[in-house]
Amino acid sequence: MAESWVNSAERIGSDLHVELTGPGGRRAALIRALREAVRGGRLAPGTRLPPYRSLAADLGIARNTVADAYAELVAEGWLTARQGSGTRVAAGVAPPPGARPRGDAARGPEENAPRAPGIRHDLRQGTPDASSFPRAAWLASYRRALQRAPHAAFGPGDPAGRPELREALAEYLARARGVRADPGRIVVCSGFAHALRLLFPRVLRGPLAVEAYGLGFHRDLLAAASVRTVPLPLDEDGARVEALGRERAVLLTPAHQFPTGGPLHPERRAAVIDWARGRDGLVLEDDYDGEFRYDRKPVGALQGLDPERVVHVGSVSKSLSPALRLGWMVLPARCVSAVLEVKGEREAWASVPDQLALADFIASGSYDRHVRRMRQRYRGRRDRLVAALAQRAPHVGVTGVAAGLHAVLRLPPGTEGAVVEAAARRGIGLDGLARFRHPQAATSAPDGLVVGYATPAEHAYGSALEALCAVLPPE
Amino acid sequence: MAESWVNSAERIGSDLHVELTGPGGRRAALIRALREAVRGGRLAPGTRLPPYRSLAADLGIARNTVADAYAELVAEGWLTARQGSGTRVAAGVAPPPGARPRGDAARGPEENAPRAPGIRHDLRQGTPDASSFPRAAWLASYRRALQRAPHAAFGPGDPAGRPELREALAEYLARARGVRADPGRIVVCSGFAHALRLLFPRVLRGPLAVEAYGLGFHRDLLAAASVRTVPLPLDEDGARVEALGRERAVLLTPAHQFPTGGPLHPERRAAVIDWARGRDGLVLEDDYDGEFRYDRKPVGALQGLDPERVVHVGSVSKSLSPALRLGWMVLPARCVSAVLEVKGEREAWASVPDQLALADFIASGSYDRHVRRMRQRYRGRRDRLVAALAQRAPHVGVTGVAAGLHAVLRLPPGTEGAVVEAAARRGIGLDGLARFRHPQAATSAPDGLVVGYATPAEHAYGSALEALCAVLPPE
Repeated sequence: MAESWVNSAERIGSDLHVELTGPGGRRAALIRALREAVRGGRLAPGTRLPPYRSLAADLGIARNTVADAYAELVAEGWLTARQGSGTRVAAGVAPPPGARPRGDAARGPEENAPRAPGIRHDLRQGTPDASSFPRAAWLASYRRALQRAPHAAFGPGDPAGRPELREALAEYLARARGVRADPGRIVVCSGFAHALRLLFPRVLRGPLAVEAYGLGFHRDLLAAASVRTVPLPLDEDGARVEALGRERAVLLTPAHQFPTGGPLHPERRAAVIDWARGRDGLVLEDDYDGEFRYDRKPVGALQGLDPERVVHVGSVSKSLSPALRLGWMVLPARCVSAVLEVKGEREAWASVPDQLALADFIASGSYDRHVRRMRQRYRGRRDRLVAALAQRAPHVGVTGVAAGLHAVLRLPPGTEGAVVEAAARRGIGLDGLARFRHPQAATSAPDGLVVGYATPAEHAYGSALEALCAVLPPE
Repeated sequence: MAESWVNSAERIGSDLHVELTGPGGRRAALIRALREAVRGGRLAPGTRLPPYRSLAADLGIARNTVADAYAELVAEGWLTARQGSGTRVAAGVAPPPGARPRGDAARGPEENAPRAPGIRHDLRQGTPDASSFPRAAWLASYRRALQRAPHAAFGPGDPAGRPELREALAEYLARARGVRADPGRIVVCSGFAHALRLLFPRVLRGPLAVEAYGLGFHRDLLAAASVRTVPLPLDEDGARVEALGRERAVLLTPAHQFPTGGPLHPERRAAVIDWARGRDGLVLEDDYDGEFRYDRKPVGALQGLDPERVVHVGSVSKSLSPALRLGWMVLPARCVSAVLEVKGEREAWASVPDQLALADFIASGSYDRHVRRMRQRYRGRRDRLVAALAQRAPHVGVTGVAAGLHAVLRLPPGTEGAVVEAAARRGIGLDGLARFRHPQAATSAPDGLVVGYATPAEHAYGSALEALCAVLPPE
């Protein structure tokens, strides 16, 4: 990343120089342009700015003007200047909610982020630490992939996905998740939601049994496809699969029930496979965080029990980044051609260079290294959460196994709504369990909070924990 | 790309070294591994192989063994060795149809390509020259984008797309296509087919008027969404928009009718906007190749006439590569939120790093440079086609304006079917006009061939033209 200031300088020189013609002279104009670049997220916290002389030369202005502008912005707290490390964008400077970098109609970059307006401490579930994306290793894989790709890779894509990626995934999923995968039965997609869209209603039909607690946006997406979902009750052993009725398909999170946090009991794993065999049914296995187990080796994928009865779906959205929009389905043989037909003859749907980069990232061992590193980090965060609760709120227990990117805090009965509201008032982003309840669920889970401990950047986690403890109900 | 052999060597060393333990000693194993790498497309034609000594060191084998293996493969025609340029993969070596690089279930990379089994000369429409993808410039943009991206870029995406890309597109589309774009009304998508899926049936309803000749896979996709399409007759001035009936939306290719090749007459452009204003209707403008006009400045986008009545859709699929799956919609203000809702709250659908790379690619001028270069190249190919026909088949005229990535050859009446069949027998991939006819079209176009002159690699175009001329009907 040693060159990053060069690029920033080019950007400043070419992209923002128009604003140097505004009122108040060049110094004022440069200050405005830099402030806007920081505020709009173009210059990220920590980015090193170009040396005075380079920027001055690029912009055709005096070196002193640049030095003055930098000094002013350091004084204002936008930049920091430290001996030996140059001038950098200050760490705490984040674009304010609703920042509009240029043009009122453009939404600011931070509106892309999980950071919704007013959220200071983001403990919402569902996303990895975006600041941990392995930029250098990913770039290395991307470069190799681009150099090595046959010309045909830049032509129309195969809807199944690149063979290099399907081969790498087959090997990885077999090794890491116990999936019985063969590249011919893997279809690359953009993630679990895309998999649902591909399957329903043209490959599979509703009604679909789902866990009584789960992601509302999956239910909404199914409803939009006119697929009725039927809630399956949950207990401490996971979904009560013996309650499956006339449905032909069931959506499960066997490794780590989302959101309640337990694995599906081995007997139930066997039972749901029996059920599927008996009624020519299918299990959709959402293996959303299967790589992250902290107390023991991860439980293998349900798909390993019967590849003809399970559609195994995974993605890099939790392990690497949701920004890549890369996922995969491992399909029973009889479903492959139907899914490809829905995808469409010339519809690759996922960037081919990214597919090739991921294939290299997996094959080169970078994926394993990254998952190991994040496993350590998230495990540490979970431990810190447990320790903070033990000290500050010992009556609030953490339920579920030590796994994944979120934990469920069991709250005293009747307090969930008030805690979620108090959190919102203090700028803490998190959800209560109630938010994940299927509207037709027969019973309700005890009061609880779903805490996404992976979401904040490392440096922001401590203060998020502090803020969380402050809104928990007294004993 | 000076380093590309280094990466090949790493790949050979790490990825294929298992096969060096096979039967027949190391020399035989290395020959097998290299042959498979070429056959499977891992080592593309023209790729320079590592020097003997490097590969020998990487693999831990004797230098002579590598030299012998290279010599054997040169003898077999897989590699070429030329003084001063080292050992390279031979140009004519393409994976045979159905090649399976590793594991029987994996499809070979070339099955991804437009090159369907049995096609030796690919003159099918719809794709740019895949061998011209600007790898180095794209990689440079990707690197800058990755270095410059704020952390939040690796979190959940905005369904509208990255603001950096929407801003770059707004500026570019205004300048190059006369689109009245504002970043807040641009929604990033995967291409035109994705735009159709987003619009129908949840934002717009059928029936949809379409040009009597067009892409069958658009019609199929609409049919799958239960949208009825109604054919609009075509004449030399484009779609006869005065024939629009009770529909509320019409899909047009105003810059260059696909496939017949003429622009929509200025009066009809005005008329269709009037129609849309009068019935609260919408025009979908498929600007699939608007940047490629060879005889004059491209006609501006229809959208410029009334941004509230036109959904302008473009992509990089023709200008850069369909493998990136990047496109955009410029929407009337009233449609933006409905489209974003269909896309889904956390559904970015297009790779964020690629979006950022494209923003840089456009803002840095690389996109303009690439389009200019390809315009020159395709213009040259069109000229060669016209010249070849003038000499070899003067009774076969080229119709339509000098634009785009395909030409339509007017054939003597009653010959189209026989020519398409003869072409198929000789391994020439191309289509007759009949293939693009809407099944309910009232009339049929005269016999014609749709020749995609952009598809072959530069070195393969001459022989494709030769092959084409050989199957044209005699005078």
